Amino acid sequence: MALCIRGVHLLPMDGSPDRPDATIVIEDGRISAVGGAETVAPPGARVVPGNGLVALPGLVNCHNHVAMTLLRGYGADLPLQRWLEERIWPAEEHLTDDDVRAGAMLGCLEMLRGGVTAFADMYDHMDAVADAVEEAGIRGVLSRGIVGLRPTWPAALAEGEALCRRARQSPSGRLTAMIAPHAEYTCSVHVWQACIAVAEREGVSIHTHVSETLAENEGCRSRHGVSPVRFLEEVGALDAGCLLAHCVHVDAADIHRLAMPRVAVSHNPVSNAKLGSGIAPVVQMRAAGVLLGVGSDGAASTDFLGLWEEMRLAAWMQKAVLRDAAALPCGDLLQMATASGARALRLPQGCGTVAPGAPADLILVQTGGLHQTPRTDLAAGVLYGTRDADVVLTVVAGRIVMERGEFPGIDHERLAADAAVRSRRLLEAV
Amino acid sequence: MALCIRGVHLLPMDGSPDRPDATIVIEDGRISAVGGAETVAPPGARVVPGNGLVALPGLVNCHNHVAMTLLRGYGADLPLQRWLEERIWPAEEHLTDDDVRAGAMLGCLEMLRGGVTAFADMYDHMDAVADAVEEAGIRGVLSRGIVGLRPTWPAALAEGEALCRRARQSPSGRLTAMIAPHAEYTCSVHVWQACIAVAEREGVSIHTHVSETLAENEGCRSRHGVSPVRFLEEVGALDAGCLLAHCVHVDAADIHRLAMPRVAVSHNPVSNAKLGSGIAPVVQMRAAGVLLGVGSDGAASTDFLGLWEEMRLAAWMQKAVLRDAAALPCGDLLQMATASGARALRLPQGCGTVAPGAPADLILVQTGGLHQTPRTDLAAGVLYGTRDADVVLTVVAGRIVMERGEFPGIDHERLAADAAVRSRRLLEAV
Repeated sequence: MALCIRGVHLLPMDGSPDRPDATIVIEDGRISAVGGAETVAPPGARVVPGNGLVALPGLVNCHNHVAMTLLRGYGADLPLQRWLEERIWPAEEHLTDDDVRAGAMLGCLEMLRGGVTAFADMYDHMDAVADAVEEAGIRGVLSRGIVGLRPTWPAALAEGEALCRRARQSPSGRLTAMIAPHAEYTCSVHVWQACIAVAEREGVSIHTHVSETLAENEGCRSRHGVSPVRFLEEVGALDAGCLLAHCVHVDAADIHRLAMPRVAVSHNPVSNAKLGSGIAPVVQMRAAGVLLGVGSDGAASTDFLGLWEEMRLAAWMQKAVLRDAAALPCGDLLQMATASGARALRLPQGCGTVAPGAPADLILVQTGGLHQTPRTDLAAGVLYGTRDADVVLTVVAGRIVMERGEFPGIDHERLAADAAVRSRRLLEAV
Repeated sequence: MALCIRGVHLLPMDGSPDRPDATIVIEDGRISAVGGAETVAPPGARVVPGNGLVALPGLVNCHNHVAMTLLRGYGADLPLQRWLEERIWPAEEHLTDDDVRAGAMLGCLEMLRGGVTAFADMYDHMDAVADAVEEAGIRGVLSRGIVGLRPTWPAALAEGEALCRRARQSPSGRLTAMIAPHAEYTCSVHVWQACIAVAEREGVSIHTHVSETLAENEGCRSRHGVSPVRFLEEVGALDAGCLLAHCVHVDAADIHRLAMPRVAVSHNPVSNAKLGSGIAPVVQMRAAGVLLGVGSDGAASTDFLGLWEEMRLAAWMQKAVLRDAAALPCGDLLQMATASGARALRLPQGCGTVAPGAPADLILVQTGGLHQTPRTDLAAGVLYGTRDADVVLTVVAGRIVMERGEFPGIDHERLAADAAVRSRRLLEAV
């Protein structure tokens, strides 16, 4: 069904300025026109009044473990190793395909509620996650996490390869894949080489965790004599194309290596903070030309999967640590969470912008709430004033997938209740 | 009117454990009973079903300039001095009493919306702020900011003294006052002594800004040879009783000085981050026994006046900077924002807790939203999962002042529209 959004204030994120009183026309999954009030709606189009709303590209969540939504906030305030060993890993042992499907559906709906239209994921039971992506109507860039320490890693890699095939045949076209060696510290050089070979054969990127903690860096130096980023370079991963989660502890030489075509970094400030990992040098990475997106990581550490508060934390952290109120301004963050994030995930051309010809992934946000009034600047008002509940419409590939808290064709209350039951069962088993 | 909240999960914050299926009875502005399902509602009481909700004390916002809500987010991303000199100060020159009343009303409603039941404020035109406090139904601890650099400071101090008298005669009893020399760097020793004399005569605390930036510390050392905290000690302010905003750049000796009865610190992490001031040593201050609350500062820097995201930033910052996931756990933060904040503001005995005999300042929050499901821990779920819109009921001094986004007897949409017009006029005048 065609859509025509009228009278909206557009933040296109394609380099052109914002446009008050814009008309956006959506046909066949794409944005067919962006114009003024004179723009004609196609016959039969649903006309959406955009007065008082701001339109912008859907947000791109560059790093997630969406099924972990079942473990939201589990083990809060525990030190990282105890959190993993006493809570997360034991709970994960009991996960079934159906659990993962339930957790992934819940997480996908939460993301759509807050205006996230695409996400990158790494986990196990990925066919169940792919089912959720297809059903929820979001875009998913999925990867099977491969832990080389386990003797079953070749089977996991084969699952990752199968996921690439499934993505190519996705009926919706919203599913793509990556190959995900979990991290330097969980995969030998041999495993890395096997993963890179598959990624190159499939024509997809590597998705991995890099330099999340200082301990990880120290371990890598003792094993390989180099930093994790340098290790990735030496093993050939950077040349193959990479989506790198975290990069909290990277030095100037690492950052120089990351400023490459086909290499992107997912900045996950809430997770890095909550787990006590540290604060990534975002301003330095951007200055060096590194392609950066924003990610939530899983809800077990981050508590929520929307990106508004995540973006604010990114800004606040950089400003506080650099003692510079001008650091990481609003426009940079909105770009990271839209156009740059879309490039980081290798989404179809035009994703992350609202422009004629681009895939129609966009959102409408309200800006007239008590916490948003008065608005003294458009971009600042959107960045610092939007909460998930302020997103009133989410469109992915031309289809309305969320409208004022409801998801057409999906009973979100039933799904949430089911997920809660599954979560209790998992926690009781730990 | 009496209230009886039934079947709620209570987080009392008085040191006792949480209580599922609690009944809370409110009569004559106070909590008259807290019990189980057997607790009898008084005749004629309105019964509020609390199933699926969590009750906790209202939050206490320990540092604000609430009228600055008219300048929400103004000059985002500008360096601090340019922000003040090019935006904030010029705009403030045009403020009228009616502007301040409008900005303060808007800010008070925003706070009530998000479950803040009391706040400390420092500004000009304070009679207008006091009017807003009385009308909105919130508790206000108000102070007239005294800038000793201006020749008119004796008149400002006289206004501060008059505000103390007005507070004593407040018909609602929700108004109290402090005396507010603005900061060390804006007030001479003579001005400080005059302020302290008035505070002691009136029996109220001093409210001031301390060690917000490194530049402030350097200036104080060059003027007085000591840190700002030491200056406050030497001038007699600490002994007089103080509410100290910021304390970002305090060393071990300063922290030792702050651990005194009648001295409290308002931690304002969003403002300190957004303005590039830095990150206060909250964990060290708490360990030393300093009484700490949480504040928003004005919406010009912080963008919003609710405390949920403010508390989360406080936790994330400490965990990230100390590289310790166990730093500043949920319970500590909820205590800072309720019971400790109430002590910091010298609110009536029992404020900041839900216990028999305490003033009835409490809130109900929903915890079943998509972004909150499943909940794996009560306190963590409340702290990390609540947004302002999840607060469904706010009670101050026994009266419902906010219920599901509406404010009984107050047309919040008209007030917001009026505030927006006034804000535009101010910005156009700059």
